[in-house]
Amino acid sequence: MTSARPPGRVWAHVGQPFTPGTSPEPLHDVLIVGAGRMGSALALALTEHAPHLRTLLIEEGGLPNEDGATILAPGIWTLAHLPDTQREAARWTLERLRTLLGDDIQARAYLTLHGQPAPGRQPTRDLLAAQPASLALLDPDLLSYATAYEAHTYRPGTLAQTAAQAAIRRGTDLLLNTRATPHPGGHVTLERLTVTNTHQIVTHETHNLRAPLVVLATGAHAPAQAEHHLGVHTRHARAYRQTPHLATPSTEGAPILHVHGLTLRPQHGAYTLIPPIHHRDPHGYVPQGGQLTGVPTGLRRETLEDLVGLMDALPALATPDLHLGRSLADIPGAWLALPGGRPDAAPTHERLDDHAHLLLGGPHADTLGLWTADQLAQKIARETERGQ
Amino acid sequence: MTSARPPGRVWAHVGQPFTPGTSPEPLHDVLIVGAGRMGSALALALTEHAPHLRTLLIEEGGLPNEDGATILAPGIWTLAHLPDTQREAARWTLERLRTLLGDDIQARAYLTLHGQPAPGRQPTRDLLAAQPASLALLDPDLLSYATAYEAHTYRPGTLAQTAAQAAIRRGTDLLLNTRATPHPGGHVTLERLTVTNTHQIVTHETHNLRAPLVVLATGAHAPAQAEHHLGVHTRHARAYRQTPHLATPSTEGAPILHVHGLTLRPQHGAYTLIPPIHHRDPHGYVPQGGQLTGVPTGLRRETLEDLVGLMDALPALATPDLHLGRSLADIPGAWLALPGGRPDAAPTHERLDDHAHLLLGGPHADTLGLWTADQLAQKIARETERGQ
Repeated sequence: MTSARPPGRVWAHVGQPFTPGTSPEPLHDVLIVGAGRMGSALALALTEHAPHLRTLLIEEGGLPNEDGATILAPGIWTLAHLPDTQREAARWTLERLRTLLGDDIQARAYLTLHGQPAPGRQPTRDLLAAQPASLALLDPDLLSYATAYEAHTYRPGTLAQTAAQAAIRRGTDLLLNTRATPHPGGHVTLERLTVTNTHQIVTHETHNLRAPLVVLATGAHAPAQAEHHLGVHTRHARAYRQTPHLATPSTEGAPILHVHGLTLRPQHGAYTLIPPIHHRDPHGYVPQGGQLTGVPTGLRRETLEDLVGLMDALPALATPDLHLGRSLADIPGAWLALPGGRPDAAPTHERLDDHAHLLLGGPHADTLGLWTADQLAQKIARETERGQ
Repeated sequence: MTSARPPGRVWAHVGQPFTPGTSPEPLHDVLIVGAGRMGSALALALTEHAPHLRTLLIEEGGLPNEDGATILAPGIWTLAHLPDTQREAARWTLERLRTLLGDDIQARAYLTLHGQPAPGRQPTRDLLAAQPASLALLDPDLLSYATAYEAHTYRPGTLAQTAAQAAIRRGTDLLLNTRATPHPGGHVTLERLTVTNTHQIVTHETHNLRAPLVVLATGAHAPAQAEHHLGVHTRHARAYRQTPHLATPSTEGAPILHVHGLTLRPQHGAYTLIPPIHHRDPHGYVPQGGQLTGVPTGLRRETLEDLVGLMDALPALATPDLHLGRSLADIPGAWLALPGGRPDAAPTHERLDDHAHLLLGGPHADTLGLWTADQLAQKIARETERGQ
């Protein structure tokens, strides 16, 4: 263990000259590309497991990034869809979430709803007896049975910000509004971005850095970066997930409801819908709105079909409360990484080459992401200690 | 039963005036849109089950249509991937194929290859002892076990043509090079197409027909036509399937090989590859080539990934024998209907409204398509007899 380090430096915009130093030797041991929740969590975990390493966290947007999957993630920690082998990692993540977020994480009931009875299921009417507003969302004759799970909700954007700030307090450097392109050999090209008065994003200045270790934590973009810039082909994939708004009022204690893959998450006094991801989107797919009985919508067709298929079981979806939008821009959506190309895969990390790691969150990042980031930090700590 | 009818009329190009008659009453009882194998088979089956019905078969291209899924279908009848419940329908289809195609259908061995032993599997080296060229395609240490199935190969384009011609001999009318747009109430707009001397396809003349019954048999396009023109939403979907060429020589008696979803079909002294379809393509997806280590290919990325994943087991795929192409146009490909959105679904038909049926082939049309077309013909025969 080294002695406590002064807080890291933060370069937020191009007005602050980026001076990582002029030494020919790299001034950082680790460059983390992407300050979403996975990259930020890794930065923080590295300050714990490998405090001797000097880390620079680089983010193309701000903190939190408004464009990435982190800001639109549901923020639901739950055991509902996990195999037993991942429960320990989930419990560890929950403890960590509590430490980082304090009162910003809230316990909330989580009900999966079904048409048929089975062991562990109770009558939906009984479980929702104290929540008449929730019961009114659904048809209890079609969704007569439910299983209750433990769940906790939080804001993933807040998590990314909290973790990054904690890391900075412990010495991590942060470079915002900067696009990073990895190259073989631990080289990274940095483009510091600025916005012109015609709202174009342009490169203000370019830097070339080198570090013994680069971690790509840019979410759904990371596999493409690994392939295009490092020449490492992976089987990871991505899917474009939209999270439409359902304006039906929700109360403070309303449970999360899960019906045939669709999650209704109480949020801001209404609901955010998190539709199922059935499979990857093909290479080259451009997200686009669908049509409902001839009327253009912002919701993609596949999601629209899923919602239409659930309108009998969830009559609230058939009301004007469901915001369909008119064009893609009307519906919040983001590219979500699918580790290994699978929608049910846990977060993962892997070594790309001698100088680079990949860190991927994906659909289960809310429940398991912090654990995976910690695992990678431990691995990096072991390897760098061995190398010294 | 009515007495034998004279052969049907054929309008092949716009030089032949289309004169279905000027009576205000419809002159045809059934309009079949699409003369792929499903539409053609239905036309023929109707001459058997409902010889009293006057049928017009309408095709946007020629016979066979060079653009549709029929011409690129593998033409493999096999029980290898069928549940027991569909075996009878498959057997019926095989008998029918034999009747229609005679010597144009050939028995051929079909081997599914596996890494592990299991009941019914034999050592690959034993099964391929008499086929050293087939054995040389694969690594028998990785694909050590195989199951042999009965299979028969034929050309689906020939089947469509043969069935349509047989139907015409029995009185069905045929209208080629004509785009048909269905409307509610049994109305259909026909655009007779012609090609200008600058190779543009233009509408030469337009007709409006009406018939008590319209059958959409336009393959992957049919669900979109049902939705856009008849307002009937279905859950059918489609996928773009490419069938790349493997130039490794195949002998006359070479077996069909099936490895982890990929089928290698001996054809024209080489192989045609039929890649697995994992799931539907999303609405709005535009087929496009992928990249292999930075080099653009005509093969879509998802298929390329599957082939790369099989290169150890099938070393032939790692040789220049595999035609990757440079752009999409280099690789034969077509949109394939996925009944119910499922890649493993059997062919199906369904009523769309009082005047329209949908008839879909899809991935199992080679093995089950004729049976499904016959089922729809029987249903139409029953309903029209009852209605008379």
